Amino acid sequence: MHRVFINTDPPRYITISILGGGQLALMLARAASQLGISVRVLASSSVCPAKHAVAECCVGDWADPETLRAFAQDADVITLENEFVDANLLADLEQRGHTVLPSSKTMRLVQDKLVQKQTLSQAGIPVVEFQAIASTQELTDAARAVGYPFVLKRRTLGYDGTGNCTVNAEADLDAAVKKLGGLTSGLYVEKWCPFVMELAVMVTRSSTGETAIYPVVESRQENHVCSSVLAPAAISSELTKLAKQMALRAVNEVDGVGTFGVEFFLLKDGTLVVNEMAPRVHNSGHYTLEACDCSQFENHIRAILGLPLGNTEMRSPAAMVNLLANTTGSGAPCGIGEALAIPRARVHLYGKLRASPGRKMGHVTALGDSAEEALHTATSAAHGIHFKE
Amino acid sequence: MHRVFINTDPPRYITISILGGGQLALMLARAASQLGISVRVLASSSVCPAKHAVAECCVGDWADPETLRAFAQDADVITLENEFVDANLLADLEQRGHTVLPSSKTMRLVQDKLVQKQTLSQAGIPVVEFQAIASTQELTDAARAVGYPFVLKRRTLGYDGTGNCTVNAEADLDAAVKKLGGLTSGLYVEKWCPFVMELAVMVTRSSTGETAIYPVVESRQENHVCSSVLAPAAISSELTKLAKQMALRAVNEVDGVGTFGVEFFLLKDGTLVVNEMAPRVHNSGHYTLEACDCSQFENHIRAILGLPLGNTEMRSPAAMVNLLANTTGSGAPCGIGEALAIPRARVHLYGKLRASPGRKMGHVTALGDSAEEALHTATSAAHGIHFKE
Repeated sequence: MHRVFINTDPPRYITISILGGGQLALMLARAASQLGISVRVLASSSVCPAKHAVAECCVGDWADPETLRAFAQDADVITLENEFVDANLLADLEQRGHTVLPSSKTMRLVQDKLVQKQTLSQAGIPVVEFQAIASTQELTDAARAVGYPFVLKRRTLGYDGTGNCTVNAEADLDAAVKKLGGLTSGLYVEKWCPFVMELAVMVTRSSTGETAIYPVVESRQENHVCSSVLAPAAISSELTKLAKQMALRAVNEVDGVGTFGVEFFLLKDGTLVVNEMAPRVHNSGHYTLEACDCSQFENHIRAILGLPLGNTEMRSPAAMVNLLANTTGSGAPCGIGEALAIPRARVHLYGKLRASPGRKMGHVTALGDSAEEALHTATSAAHGIHFKE
Repeated sequence: MHRVFINTDPPRYITISILGGGQLALMLARAASQLGISVRVLASSSVCPAKHAVAECCVGDWADPETLRAFAQDADVITLENEFVDANLLADLEQRGHTVLPSSKTMRLVQDKLVQKQTLSQAGIPVVEFQAIASTQELTDAARAVGYPFVLKRRTLGYDGTGNCTVNAEADLDAAVKKLGGLTSGLYVEKWCPFVMELAVMVTRSSTGETAIYPVVESRQENHVCSSVLAPAAISSELTKLAKQMALRAVNEVDGVGTFGVEFFLLKDGTLVVNEMAPRVHNSGHYTLEACDCSQFENHIRAILGLPLGNTEMRSPAAMVNLLANTTGSGAPCGIGEALAIPRARVHLYGKLRASPGRKMGHVTALGDSAEEALHTATSAAHGIHFKE
């Protein structure tokens, strides 16, 4: 492809159309802008983070076929900042001649987490033990088979712990099913997986087949939301190699094009299993903006345009700390001055105008002589920032 | 100040309004976006580089008071990407209660290069020998005083060598005056200054008075246009210290707020004289995007908001090569793929839709073990890129 410019009359640089207008679209847009490429987003709200940094912000429902078709009309390439757009609707766009990357085929294999697990498992990639369920009887049987506690999960639309429910005993089954929207919403069973560390690897795969793998990082969670990332993870070189290989295999297996986040559980016995794969740039890769020559965002843009991929090596160890809101409120960031005064802390704010508990309002990255030192710097800066009620 | 968020109802992040919509506004907008701040630009053309990356692009003439007033209406802070907006018009905005940074006072001292030289000279900062002229007789006298060849310059609106004319003999005087628009357009005389190296220093000074100084770089020109920058310059630590001191003094002298570029000539005898000062982010500071924790653009945003300034130390030596168009044409960039394939080369394209000889279409930065090595990398990538006729 190698497309950056279209020699029409008047000539123009190409436009990338992103489904979604959140902070991931915002950071993708900045990366595109560096190459002279403009970005349009289809956002669910007119106050989305990407709004102020893109050529056009369309507000609409990406679950509506007509809205999607209208948005796709002038698109040179369509890409995604989330995994929530129905693969069938993406296939409809492809059938109408649009380029969608990652493709509907990839999204079909990834966005349904049960299908994703089946796909990876069939390819011989270790995943957490899981079971499909279609009825109350199958659920009860599956629960007994994997044992209590186990995790009941929604197949689609889950993120940051929403769509998951830990079930401790058979008596809690009904409540858990109800909480997740009923069996008809599509649920599956996952065995309880006591891990010692969560790891993540960002992989970029170009439409040309070229691949680039970022370092293996440790991802720390609080209340099912990523709170911090240490890059690189303090693991052996053998494990690092294995995680990278598994991540690459997973992305190849779904014929992914673009940047993908592959999350792992490291078990007590040293075993590595894939937790899940995100078909998009990912929170655990934000550190690449400062730590790598070519960020996960720029490599995504390069990948979907068929341009050569950039260097994924780290300049130095790094860490990232998410800025999460504690309460509902205006989202006004306070303490920015104090945070910016900390040398080497890089503050990112997403411009969100409403805060709610656990909402990602921004993040802080720091480089350091070690990931732990960087974490200390980033945490110091992050602790000074809070979001107004 | 410490303003990033204005707690109005509904609360909103502040908006920075930039006079100008070129690549400097584009890169300022990306830096603002990282802090959740949105940007509006007043551009002279609807196809300006900043258009695709800002919240709003107003097209209008910044020499028109009414246009300026209308643009300023909702501005939280007004800043500049060029030195061409009349200081009197900026003063009018200030009188109407707007915050303009750098201020009209600063712009009055800087935008007229004769006044700039007088100001620096009176403060004891060495500048190239110059003479004010108001008549043909004064021009002839001044020319004889400084000797031939000398440089006849426009006091305002010059950039990249436009507005300058080298005069080799008295017989060429009339032609030179005519070329620069006549004596009434405001001209002055500068002594011919045979230098051995051109240096530049970016200085950021906050509205709080805090200052941050970037490394001293060597700036190489071709046809009066910056072609490349080596960071740091290969000069002694004494000279480095002196250049930084002079740059800081120059910015303090004009009470500058924001990022300023101070350009120097290094003479054969080791003397350093200020060539000129730009009251804005500057081509010779683009390398800071990759080489420093906090770029000249982010520090400008911080400075005009009264936020603490960021670290200006270099992570490693770096070099920048401008991507200049050779001919008039569509501006379609070719060879991007080849350039992106060079590891460590960071390609920036400004999205310009018309090329003309010498027009800055983008730039390439590289980091390296030495500035010369980085220059080699950046040059290799830049050489592969050309812009279509």
